[in-house]
Amino acid sequence: MAVNLPPPDPKSLYPVPGVELGIAMAGIKKPNRKDLLVLRLAPGAAVAGVFTLNRFCAAPVLLAKKHLKNSVKALVVNTGNANAGTGKDGLARALSICSALAKSLDCKPQQILPFSTGVIMEPLPVERIVNGLPAALRFGASWADAAEAIMTTDTVAKACSRKVKLSGGVATVTGIAKGAGMIRPDMATMLGFVATDAKVAQKALQSIVKRVADKSFNCATVDGDTSTNDSFMLIATGKGPSASSVKDLAILQNAILEASQFLAQAIIRDGEGATKFVTVTVERGRSEAECRKIAYAIAHSPLVKTAFFASDPNLGRILAAIGYAGVKDLDTSKVDLYIDDVRVARSGGRDVDYREEQGARAMKKPEFTVRALLNRGKAAATLWTCDLSFDYVKINAEYRT
Amino acid sequence: MAVNLPPPDPKSLYPVPGVELGIAMAGIKKPNRKDLLVLRLAPGAAVAGVFTLNRFCAAPVLLAKKHLKNSVKALVVNTGNANAGTGKDGLARALSICSALAKSLDCKPQQILPFSTGVIMEPLPVERIVNGLPAALRFGASWADAAEAIMTTDTVAKACSRKVKLSGGVATVTGIAKGAGMIRPDMATMLGFVATDAKVAQKALQSIVKRVADKSFNCATVDGDTSTNDSFMLIATGKGPSASSVKDLAILQNAILEASQFLAQAIIRDGEGATKFVTVTVERGRSEAECRKIAYAIAHSPLVKTAFFASDPNLGRILAAIGYAGVKDLDTSKVDLYIDDVRVARSGGRDVDYREEQGARAMKKPEFTVRALLNRGKAAATLWTCDLSFDYVKINAEYRT
Repeated sequence: MAVNLPPPDPKSLYPVPGVELGIAMAGIKKPNRKDLLVLRLAPGAAVAGVFTLNRFCAAPVLLAKKHLKNSVKALVVNTGNANAGTGKDGLARALSICSALAKSLDCKPQQILPFSTGVIMEPLPVERIVNGLPAALRFGASWADAAEAIMTTDTVAKACSRKVKLSGGVATVTGIAKGAGMIRPDMATMLGFVATDAKVAQKALQSIVKRVADKSFNCATVDGDTSTNDSFMLIATGKGPSASSVKDLAILQNAILEASQFLAQAIIRDGEGATKFVTVTVERGRSEAECRKIAYAIAHSPLVKTAFFASDPNLGRILAAIGYAGVKDLDTSKVDLYIDDVRVARSGGRDVDYREEQGARAMKKPEFTVRALLNRGKAAATLWTCDLSFDYVKINAEYRT
Repeated sequence: MAVNLPPPDPKSLYPVPGVELGIAMAGIKKPNRKDLLVLRLAPGAAVAGVFTLNRFCAAPVLLAKKHLKNSVKALVVNTGNANAGTGKDGLARALSICSALAKSLDCKPQQILPFSTGVIMEPLPVERIVNGLPAALRFGASWADAAEAIMTTDTVAKACSRKVKLSGGVATVTGIAKGAGMIRPDMATMLGFVATDAKVAQKALQSIVKRVADKSFNCATVDGDTSTNDSFMLIATGKGPSASSVKDLAILQNAILEASQFLAQAIIRDGEGATKFVTVTVERGRSEAECRKIAYAIAHSPLVKTAFFASDPNLGRILAAIGYAGVKDLDTSKVDLYIDDVRVARSGGRDVDYREEQGARAMKKPEFTVRALLNRGKAAATLWTCDLSFDYVKINAEYRT
């Protein structure tokens, strides 16, 4: 059960001129399931992206990074198989998908960006995917269809749209993402695709995608397991108004950020077994890096996450996580801790005015904020995470039994 | 249910001349439970220790570190309350325990080392502990009693004994430890006390305790949550043979290491909800540090740990953990992976000869080894860990409900 995440309303998702969408049921892992997506781009579209830092990054990730240097004609995404941990054979298989699609689209394989998500260390079923291409190449699919076609273990499709006024007219931003869910999870594989019809220079686009990723997808964690296939791609087709002035770029970046934050939060709301959506904010640190370190320690602690699940204000666990996060010169006697607006610890110890009912009340809500003040600087960082529930173990332990 | 860990046989635990043990039921958290331990040392005993690196380290840890500089008369250990996250008030409470015990033992408070384990962020019940001291000061308890008196959430008491022949005669090494278990876990608080009657110089003892800790307690992880109270103390009373030659020190260190490894592994076997005891070995790395990084990534991954629980050879999850461990220049095309003697991945991809039944068979056993070969150097590292089961979540989520 996703936390406060209704399925997207198809009417709320605006088409993006310059992006055509096609989907298919290729039977990659299961029959009768949308599992293949092709995004065809108008000539001249700019594409930028950020990719997983996992050294075991998947074969399609290696190719997509390489092909990104060329003029991109299309993106192709399959679910049901991650094509990761597959060595040289995996690269050859990913390339043959690019070749098959390039042939149909009359371009070079190097103009195709491939993406895969699903089980790791199993060979990609190339034939099924190639056989599914003709259906996808009829195009005419909606963004809602596309969001559905990249789901694997998600329980809810994730999509978001914005319109913003630039000096040259109204631009559209529409994006989709997939994240960890139930059914057959093998990895918290995360894919995000956001497109705009604005005209943006390649270099500006690359800088936007990096900045947006850092404040959206890079702020989300379910279990700390960095996927082999994470990719976040930003497309600017240039079919709409131009964004070249500092002001227009800022407006556009903000719309892209809003859409991406919605998508990143949607992944957490639909996190495996999630019953709580928790925002972790660490403030008044010396650097953003140290604030992120502490926020991750809190968000990844199994003891903290099971306390979230139980709505149990066992808040010493959060102090302990702050203490072991690796900020070596942290003066704990200055640390304050809040759950929403309840101050539970002050100057490194339990707040004398704090009563446990207050903490329990705040933590019973499906969404709340854990806020730590380090009181040694002006930097801050925010993460979104979920709890660790019975269903997380069930989903990840039982799916083959 | 601890994994292959029977309770210690009291007859197998040799007394250590120069250490007197006393226990009490002080009712610190629950009535009728051994929860207080005093170890009185013979004059001239040397004591060395290593302590948690958690910045929120507990008040007793701060005092024990400080008092260790003096001639130590006694150690006092309470369970049921960690006296951590308690600020200045916590320090005052810990000191008043030292003062009360010092008065009875006719020494200075600075000659007492205090230790606490239990709930974090709650005030230490000083009065109950002080009232329990007279019973403990009757001494006459055994090491088996002592092991029981420091249990909190453990399901099995942990103790181990060795006798070794030094050039001057036979020396005894006996130790006890406590680790994470069920019932009322608040932290994987770990305490270890190992004593020998050998005569060892303070400096040599400090170097032994550091080296032994690195190869025993520092190789154990249940959930990655570094406790606020971890302490490992090594006592050499000097009532037995002297260990001053290089050879004698090596023999003694080895016996201490064996006892400590037994205790550290016992903590994992009794880890919260554990159904599997897993050894993670990373070999042929460039440095021990990078091997440890990767071993910890494997041992802490919730996805890997739930696969252990399910005996599910979903081994791509292990490759993914190796990939995100933070070894930035790792060449994954050289990595081999084994479960016991089954090679599952070779040169970064699935071994063509591997069949899933082989992996499943190895992982069904209550104990197995995950072995990763990086094939880029000569360093290695080993950790012990357990699986992530329903009971882990149950223990940590439900105990107050």
